[in-house]
Amino acid sequence: MFENSQESRTNLSELGEFGLIDHLTKNFSPRLKSTIKAIGDDAAVLDFENEQTLISTDLLVEGVHFDLSYTPLKHLGYKAVMVNLSDIYAMNGTATQITVSIAVSNRFPVEALEELYSGIHLASKIYNVDVVGGDTTSSTSGLFISVTALGVAEKDEVVYREGANPNDLLVLTGDLGAAYMGLQVLEREKEVFKANPNAQPDLDQYTYLIERQLKPEARKDIPPLLKKLEVKPTSMIDISDGLSSEIIHLCKSSKVGANLFEEKIPLDPAVISVCEEFQLDSTTIALSGGEDYELLFTISQNDYDKIKGNPHLTVIGHMTEEKEGMHLITRAAQKLPLIARGWNSMGNKED
Amino acid sequence: MFENSQESRTNLSELGEFGLIDHLTKNFSPRLKSTIKAIGDDAAVLDFENEQTLISTDLLVEGVHFDLSYTPLKHLGYKAVMVNLSDIYAMNGTATQITVSIAVSNRFPVEALEELYSGIHLASKIYNVDVVGGDTTSSTSGLFISVTALGVAEKDEVVYREGANPNDLLVLTGDLGAAYMGLQVLEREKEVFKANPNAQPDLDQYTYLIERQLKPEARKDIPPLLKKLEVKPTSMIDISDGLSSEIIHLCKSSKVGANLFEEKIPLDPAVISVCEEFQLDSTTIALSGGEDYELLFTISQNDYDKIKGNPHLTVIGHMTEEKEGMHLITRAAQKLPLIARGWNSMGNKED
Repeated sequence: MFENSQESRTNLSELGEFGLIDHLTKNFSPRLKSTIKAIGDDAAVLDFENEQTLISTDLLVEGVHFDLSYTPLKHLGYKAVMVNLSDIYAMNGTATQITVSIAVSNRFPVEALEELYSGIHLASKIYNVDVVGGDTTSSTSGLFISVTALGVAEKDEVVYREGANPNDLLVLTGDLGAAYMGLQVLEREKEVFKANPNAQPDLDQYTYLIERQLKPEARKDIPPLLKKLEVKPTSMIDISDGLSSEIIHLCKSSKVGANLFEEKIPLDPAVISVCEEFQLDSTTIALSGGEDYELLFTISQNDYDKIKGNPHLTVIGHMTEEKEGMHLITRAAQKLPLIARGWNSMGNKED
Repeated sequence: MFENSQESRTNLSELGEFGLIDHLTKNFSPRLKSTIKAIGDDAAVLDFENEQTLISTDLLVEGVHFDLSYTPLKHLGYKAVMVNLSDIYAMNGTATQITVSIAVSNRFPVEALEELYSGIHLASKIYNVDVVGGDTTSSTSGLFISVTALGVAEKDEVVYREGANPNDLLVLTGDLGAAYMGLQVLEREKEVFKANPNAQPDLDQYTYLIERQLKPEARKDIPPLLKKLEVKPTSMIDISDGLSSEIIHLCKSSKVGANLFEEKIPLDPAVISVCEEFQLDSTTIALSGGEDYELLFTISQNDYDKIKGNPHLTVIGHMTEEKEGMHLITRAAQKLPLIARGWNSMGNKED
């Protein structure tokens, strides 16, 4: 269905020893003042002057984090960058540089890697980050993408997971559940395609969901928005594993409890309708779906007026004393304990 | 033969979602003043004050870069760190932090990863770097280790590949060829072991070679030594792919030529004797063997007296005008063009 197909096919070995990475990165020219030396030496050289440095890394594995039967390689390159930038924005920072390492089996022609790198290049342009290094190697099977992102923030601007206080408001950017439901649609279409390769899927009504899954955008806009609104969150985290587990992370790091109000959780109408179609509970999807790359943060109640009515931000609950625990308050006013069911491939300490 | 064997065997899944990385990094406490926040948030936070930041990354793949039938996992963890630190030292910098991501198939029990991380931990202690982040995920097959190293240097201390001038002296740390010959010994013993699992190999005479292959040390001592000697190299690179290709890198980056004198190439007696045993030419091994993690640099002739007689440093040649090309001057005074035959898995832009 969306199988990556390339008309021409150049074997990786044809580019020779140092040819591949030169070839793939030839259009990557650094733009930032902080990038003193990018690709081309033993290490990249950066100058952040007086700002603090942020660093985060993620490893994406074929067959675990992505399925190339419905993931275009260009989108995959773009997403690999987003996953990492999201962690920098979750510290209230500005992303500045990335390194990209890939291990790839020889079933991939050079043209496939060009596609992958075109997505990385596009992301680096749109998000204004320089690609300053990386490594390209062969793998015995499959594709592995390891991205490390660097960012900067003034010392007193960095927001950790651990600063939330009881009575702080719990605020979410954007809406939840779309990326997970996009994945469900893609998985269903894959099965349909397997049964009947001539089927012509009509995916128009799922466009938003599929885009959120295949080409997510990180919330680059939120740190400057918060600065403009003169709000410094007391704690912040990105939502990669579903709302539940991220609230639990914030609470545990900050030693507080939380009440989350089901009726406040922002859902796109497309999520509600596809959840009905799949007979899934949309709240469960928002709580545990993951891959939304939105930001979750807490603010002092005194700052409420500054964010009130902002279309990017929704107050979904508030923090409590630690001993009160972490709860979902349902539409029927039931109080249910929050449970981490976020998707996670074995454990990731950094997002 | 050296098969990694663990008495107990805990499945990765038993540690649960976030348990594994917590478990593996529980002894990793940051020691450096520049590490503001290590593991435990969306990103690590570092403060390099006025120094420039260096970053380098390498990806090691089972079956491509290492063979677990003769590589103890603790050594592998140690080596994965060395490979990256070497790139920081090659910029004349001080290594400060690393991130470590691994993808691992479920054939590895938790105890195997503990071994791997014990090597990473040991390296971080001895080399005084903090482990500040990482990612742990499953792979469909094999073990992948992606390490990113950060370092710092004063702006006017950073040494690039591109500053060599004609008539500069070409200087090498340590000796060459041992890591490659260690690999040959290990590969031979693996074949012997396959043919006769009861054979008791006597590897005593190969200790130095095997150690250089399995547990290399990066040249942390060289940047401070150069500072003490009041020598700032005009260019520098680390030797990961063999002397030839690294000289070619320096020459191309600096737009100069070079004459390398065969008789000056430092070889350990163990390399010479094992080359005789394997009927290999020891100069060829030094030129193309790779994995020695020594540093190669150029200095002005005016600095010769400062390094003369230092047991860590050997002058092996000099730079020339670019148009004169790059040559090996043999013991028989023949002038042969230098050719890059360094081992490389497809291309690596950063080392």
